[in-house]
Amino acid sequence: MRVAVLGAGAWGSTFASVLADAGNDVMVWGRDPAVVARIADQHRSPAVAELVVPDTVRATTDPALAMRGAELVAVAVPAQSAREILTPLAGLLEPGAVVLSLMKGIELSTGLRMSQVIVEALGVPASRVAVLSGPNLAREIAQHQPTATVIAAQDEELARRLTAVCATGWFRPYTNTDVIGVELCGAVKNVVAIGIGIAQGRGYGDNTTATLITRGLAEIARLGLALGADVETFAGLAGMGDLFATCDSPLSRNHQLGRRIGEGMDLEHALAATPGTAEGVKTARSVVELAQRIGVDMPISSAVSAVLHEGQPVDLMGELLLARPHKADGV
Amino acid sequence: MRVAVLGAGAWGSTFASVLADAGNDVMVWGRDPAVVARIADQHRSPAVAELVVPDTVRATTDPALAMRGAELVAVAVPAQSAREILTPLAGLLEPGAVVLSLMKGIELSTGLRMSQVIVEALGVPASRVAVLSGPNLAREIAQHQPTATVIAAQDEELARRLTAVCATGWFRPYTNTDVIGVELCGAVKNVVAIGIGIAQGRGYGDNTTATLITRGLAEIARLGLALGADVETFAGLAGMGDLFATCDSPLSRNHQLGRRIGEGMDLEHALAATPGTAEGVKTARSVVELAQRIGVDMPISSAVSAVLHEGQPVDLMGELLLARPHKADGV
Repeated sequence: MRVAVLGAGAWGSTFASVLADAGNDVMVWGRDPAVVARIADQHRSPAVAELVVPDTVRATTDPALAMRGAELVAVAVPAQSAREILTPLAGLLEPGAVVLSLMKGIELSTGLRMSQVIVEALGVPASRVAVLSGPNLAREIAQHQPTATVIAAQDEELARRLTAVCATGWFRPYTNTDVIGVELCGAVKNVVAIGIGIAQGRGYGDNTTATLITRGLAEIARLGLALGADVETFAGLAGMGDLFATCDSPLSRNHQLGRRIGEGMDLEHALAATPGTAEGVKTARSVVELAQRIGVDMPISSAVSAVLHEGQPVDLMGELLLARPHKADGV
Repeated sequence: MRVAVLGAGAWGSTFASVLADAGNDVMVWGRDPAVVARIADQHRSPAVAELVVPDTVRATTDPALAMRGAELVAVAVPAQSAREILTPLAGLLEPGAVVLSLMKGIELSTGLRMSQVIVEALGVPASRVAVLSGPNLAREIAQHQPTATVIAAQDEELARRLTAVCATGWFRPYTNTDVIGVELCGAVKNVVAIGIGIAQGRGYGDNTTATLITRGLAEIARLGLALGADVETFAGLAGMGDLFATCDSPLSRNHQLGRRIGEGMDLEHALAATPGTAEGVKTARSVVELAQRIGVDMPISSAVSAVLHEGQPVDLMGELLLARPHKADGV
């Protein structure tokens, strides 16, 4: 299948390579000519040292060239720039093309999920937009580590079709029809990952991490249920699986950033020290806004946002676990 | 409250210290006079270097002395020895005393959970037996790291009463009435922890670990639902939380043992190299027997049992994730 991948960062270039290994004709679009040249000519990605891009992958700075004839457009640009980047490309989308979101975030000010931003920016019906999310550290996929993921679409047949498009011997997609749940998991887990990084940087151990992961997933599920998601999604690969992979891995940018904050660095320096986009920094703010608007209690996300954006002390993460009254476990 | 702790190993001595810090009058019973003397006289545990046992904790090799006047008896002996150890102590239990199981395992040959073994061995009604399970690495509790746990009892009032008995400034129990689910989580997670250790010892990374944790929890939940457990338990601290804490921590004996197997050591040497009891080795066999009897598919536990007990190659853990047909995510 002819596929365009919009975004030449760590995840865009890695997923383009998976698509090529799965037998597709892939062209990557990126804005930075140096990055595009490195992919097109040297078959390497500046963002993922381990990645060897298959020879068949082409790259360009011309979005029209990338999207011409593409039956599938995979989007991997920074979440908060998605609307601005995609809106001018709406006219380039082939009639009937499917759009797959690889992005993880919630748009500031609108509170929209990335698939909703795609619908608005590209003018494509929601029935032709799918999302991919799961425990997918790019560097491990670049090394062909056994990896599973989730592709969600309103139409299960579309999700199934896309799993066949991107499956390889080491990359295994599962299907789901809960687009809302899968996207919320992918977005909010970055906030929890920052929280766990903060706690670990502050010196707390695995018992604390395990509790933050568990209560973090519970608050993602509370938000999801309020927005119409399916509770099973949160226990699956896109929920628990991705939360685990992101929250405790030094390969996660959000975890790295949180750890630096926990060790005493301020946000400005932590952002400068962390390569790429740590999506959770802005998502912390947008998810807390969204939760307040619909009346959902999200203490971990709120604490992360308070530490990042309001100068609250990092000890907030540990106190949070113990300060609330004794009560029943669960969502 | 006057409390007897049966078992002077890592978890027994650590939990006895939590109970004492929470204000209880605690006596530990152990079979090994050297271990008992170390606790009673030097206030240290040979099994947990970091633990300083509060001065108020007494220890004895005499079970009658330990259990006399005890309103609460906490049991932390190896799962497969529980019946043999407890049966002779039945007559020592005070009328009306409550028994709290700290054990994690499923009895070989009977397939019974530890609370069921306690009911049979001590002749106590199930309504007076509670269980405690959660993300509780003993060494971190010994260091007073912020830690949460779950206490489950059929009677929620009993569970609530016990949370008050053992809560401290850094140890926070939540309640649950799903005794079956909480016990199955505690037992089977040790098997999954071995599986993840095997995969990591074999060289697989965090994407694989995240997938094994997620699919591992899904198979624990399938078993639990077949046995009458509540699906929410698996997403809570005793399920996901403990799975996370155990599966990926070098402080977990089961994880350590699995890692040695993954690196190529045989079971006999791996057992000898791992201090204490890695409960998952025997639980792997008992859980697979139980699952087969009631017709539940548990591919990860089956693979762990096959590697440990039938000499199958460690590559089975990686193949498992990718070999099954593409299908929907979830339980």
